[in-house]
Amino acid sequence: MDDGGSLPVRDELRGQSPYGAPQLDVPVRLNTNENPYPLPEPLVARIAERVAEAARGLNRYPDRDALELRAGLARYLTDSTGHPVRTDQVWAANGSNEVLQQLLQAFGGPGRTALGFEPTYSMHALLARGTGTGWIAGPRRADFTIDLDAAVRTIAERRPQVVFVCSPNNPTGTAVDADTVRALYDAAQAARPSLVVIDEAYGEFSHAPSLLPLLEGRPHLVLSRTMSKAFGAAGLRLGYLAAAPAVVDAVQLVRLPYHLSAVTQATALAALEYTDTLLAYVAQLRSERDRLVAELRAAGCAVTPSDANFVQFGVFADAAAAWRRLLDQGVLVRDNGVPGHLRVSTGTPEENDAFLDAVRTLTKEHSMTVSTPDSTTGRMSEDPA
Amino acid sequence: MDDGGSLPVRDELRGQSPYGAPQLDVPVRLNTNENPYPLPEPLVARIAERVAEAARGLNRYPDRDALELRAGLARYLTDSTGHPVRTDQVWAANGSNEVLQQLLQAFGGPGRTALGFEPTYSMHALLARGTGTGWIAGPRRADFTIDLDAAVRTIAERRPQVVFVCSPNNPTGTAVDADTVRALYDAAQAARPSLVVIDEAYGEFSHAPSLLPLLEGRPHLVLSRTMSKAFGAAGLRLGYLAAAPAVVDAVQLVRLPYHLSAVTQATALAALEYTDTLLAYVAQLRSERDRLVAELRAAGCAVTPSDANFVQFGVFADAAAAWRRLLDQGVLVRDNGVPGHLRVSTGTPEENDAFLDAVRTLTKEHSMTVSTPDSTTGRMSEDPA
Repeated sequence: MDDGGSLPVRDELRGQSPYGAPQLDVPVRLNTNENPYPLPEPLVARIAERVAEAARGLNRYPDRDALELRAGLARYLTDSTGHPVRTDQVWAANGSNEVLQQLLQAFGGPGRTALGFEPTYSMHALLARGTGTGWIAGPRRADFTIDLDAAVRTIAERRPQVVFVCSPNNPTGTAVDADTVRALYDAAQAARPSLVVIDEAYGEFSHAPSLLPLLEGRPHLVLSRTMSKAFGAAGLRLGYLAAAPAVVDAVQLVRLPYHLSAVTQATALAALEYTDTLLAYVAQLRSERDRLVAELRAAGCAVTPSDANFVQFGVFADAAAAWRRLLDQGVLVRDNGVPGHLRVSTGTPEENDAFLDAVRTLTKEHSMTVSTPDSTTGRMSEDPA
Repeated sequence: MDDGGSLPVRDELRGQSPYGAPQLDVPVRLNTNENPYPLPEPLVARIAERVAEAARGLNRYPDRDALELRAGLARYLTDSTGHPVRTDQVWAANGSNEVLQQLLQAFGGPGRTALGFEPTYSMHALLARGTGTGWIAGPRRADFTIDLDAAVRTIAERRPQVVFVCSPNNPTGTAVDADTVRALYDAAQAARPSLVVIDEAYGEFSHAPSLLPLLEGRPHLVLSRTMSKAFGAAGLRLGYLAAAPAVVDAVQLVRLPYHLSAVTQATALAALEYTDTLLAYVAQLRSERDRLVAELRAAGCAVTPSDANFVQFGVFADAAAAWRRLLDQGVLVRDNGVPGHLRVSTGTPEENDAFLDAVRTLTKEHSMTVSTPDSTTGRMSEDPA
C-alpha cells in the first residue's frame, strides 16, 4: 500500500499485508485444505440447471432469509448427526468467515473480547481485529490439546464475551472432546453470559462424532460449519451455523441485507442434493489422512494426531526452509507459523505419494534434521533457527 | 429476538429489527428499485455455461483477487464513461453494501466518523453503526438537493474521516453535479485527509454523465457501483468500486479472504458479456421513469426530479396510509420514512400503468389529499399525521 502516507487508513492497518496463503501454480497443491476431488459431473450439470433457474429471476433480490437453503442445511445436520436441527436454528453466509464475522459484530465488538486457544485458525484473531473485538490468546499444551485447567483459569480471569473452540483445530488437527466443551461452556457462563463458538469446519473428517448434540440445553453455544471441505466446495463460499433461534435472530441484526446471492443459494442447494456422493469422498480422504499420519511417522516425522483433512508434521530445525525445499520438489504445503511444524492437506492418493516422496528426500538431507519435541516443555529439542 | 434477555448481544442491538423492505408477494412490486426485466435467455444460458465451468473447479478456492472480473469491470467503466480505468483501480464484493462496509472498516471504525446527507440510502448509517463508526447526519435543502454552504460548514466543524455522497441519491432520486463534488472533496481534504465516497449505484440511469472522471487527481475519492440495477442482477450481489490503487490495497487488508465466490465471479463475467443488451433496458427504463414523473405530476403529485430508476412522490398527509392504500390495490411501493413521501421503482410499462391507476384512485380520495411542500421551509403545508 503506497500512497505516500496520506491515505486516511486506520493506524492499526498501516504496514499490514492482506491475509492469505500464496496462490502458486505448482503440480501438487496441498496448502489450503481444499478437497482434492472435483465435483462429479452430474452435480456440475445440476448446478448449471439450478443456477439457470435462479438466473431467470436474477433481476430480483434473492430470498433475504435463505429459507430453502437453511432448511436443507438443517436437514443435513439432522441426518448426519442424528440430532434434530430446525431451520430457525440455522444461519448461512458467504463462508464460515462471514458467519464468524457476523457473530463478532453481534456479540463482540469495541469494549469486548474474544478468546481462542493458539495455535488455532488465524482468522479468528483477524476477525476479532476487524470487528474491533479485543483478542485473548489462550494457551494449549505442548501436544496442542487444550489444557482445561489453564483454559478455565483464563476464562475466569479475562471474562471474554466470546470463546472460540476450533475442533478439529486448524492447523494442528486436534479434536476437542465433548466433556472439555461442556466444562469450557460452564466456565464461560460462570464468568458472564457469553457465547461459545465451536468452529467445526473440519467436523466431517473427525474420528469422533459431531459436537452438535451439545446445543441441547446450551442457549449460548454455537456450532459453525462450512461446505468448503466435506462438500468439496471451497469455491462456493458457503458457511453456516447451528444454535438457538435467538442467536440466529441476533445475527440477522448485523448481516448485510441480501448478503447471500441467488446463485450461491442455488449452487449450495444442488450440492446438498448430492450429499451421499460427496460424503463418500470424505470417507476416502479420512483413510488417506490416516495413511499420511502413518507414513510421515515411518519417515521419522513427529505428527500431531489429526481429526481433520490435514496433518501437522515436524519437527524441523527450520520450518520455512523445509517448506521451500518441498516447494522445490513441486509440493506446496502450508507454513502456519507454528515453530518447527508444517501442515499438509490430504490430497488424492497420487498427490499424497508425491508429497511423501518429497518428505522422505527432505528428511534424508543433513540440513533438514527432524527432531522430536521435548514432551514436558513443548520446546523443540533443537531450537528452530 | 426472545431469549429471556440473557443472550450477550451488544446493548445497542437490543430491541432492533433486521434491515429490509417487506418481501411481499403482490402483483406489482415496485419497492426495491429492482430492474423489472428478467435477463435475456441467451444470457441465462451463458451464465449456466460459465458457472458449470467454474463448478468443475469448485473444490478449489476462488481467485482471491478476482482479477478477471475486476479487469472486466474496469473495461466496462472505461467504455461507458470514456475515462480510462485500470484493473488495479477496481475492487468488487458481494453487493455495494459489502464494498461500503469494507471501506468503513479500513477508513472508519471506532473513534472515527462518517457523514451523509439525509435523507439518503439508509444503509450508509447502518454500515457505520455496524463498523463502530460514528454517524453524522448532514443536511439537505427542502428540495432534497445538497446545500453546499451548509455541507462545507458541517465538514469543517465535524471533520469526518468518510463523507458519503449518494448520486443519484436514494430515496430522492437527486443527482449531485461535478462542481458540488469538487467542492465537497476540497472541503473534506481541508478538514483532514479523508475519504469521499460517491455512491453511484443508480449512475447509469442519470441524465448527467458519471462522476467517474473526477477520480483524476483526487487520490481520496471513491466511486461505488453495482450490477444490481443497470445490469438487472440484484440477485447476483455484485458491487464494485473505482478509486486510486492505494484505496484498493487498503480494502484488501480488511476484506475476508476469498470473499467472492467462483460462481459469483462466473455469473458477473457472463453478464458483462451482455453489457450492450442490458444497457438497452436501461434506456427504456429511463424513458419510463420520465413518463412516471410527468404522469405523477399530471395526477397532482409533487415529484422530486429523478436521475435514478425510481421516483419520489407526495406530498401525502399520511404517507403510511397512502402506502397501505396502494398495497390494497396490488401495488407495492416503498415508504422510506421521508415525511409525506413515497418512492416507486420504475417497472415495465404495464406495471407503471397499474401503479399510475392506483395513484389516481388515491389522489381522488378525500383522506389522501395531496398537498405541495412549502418551498421556502421544506415543511409540508399540511403536517403529516
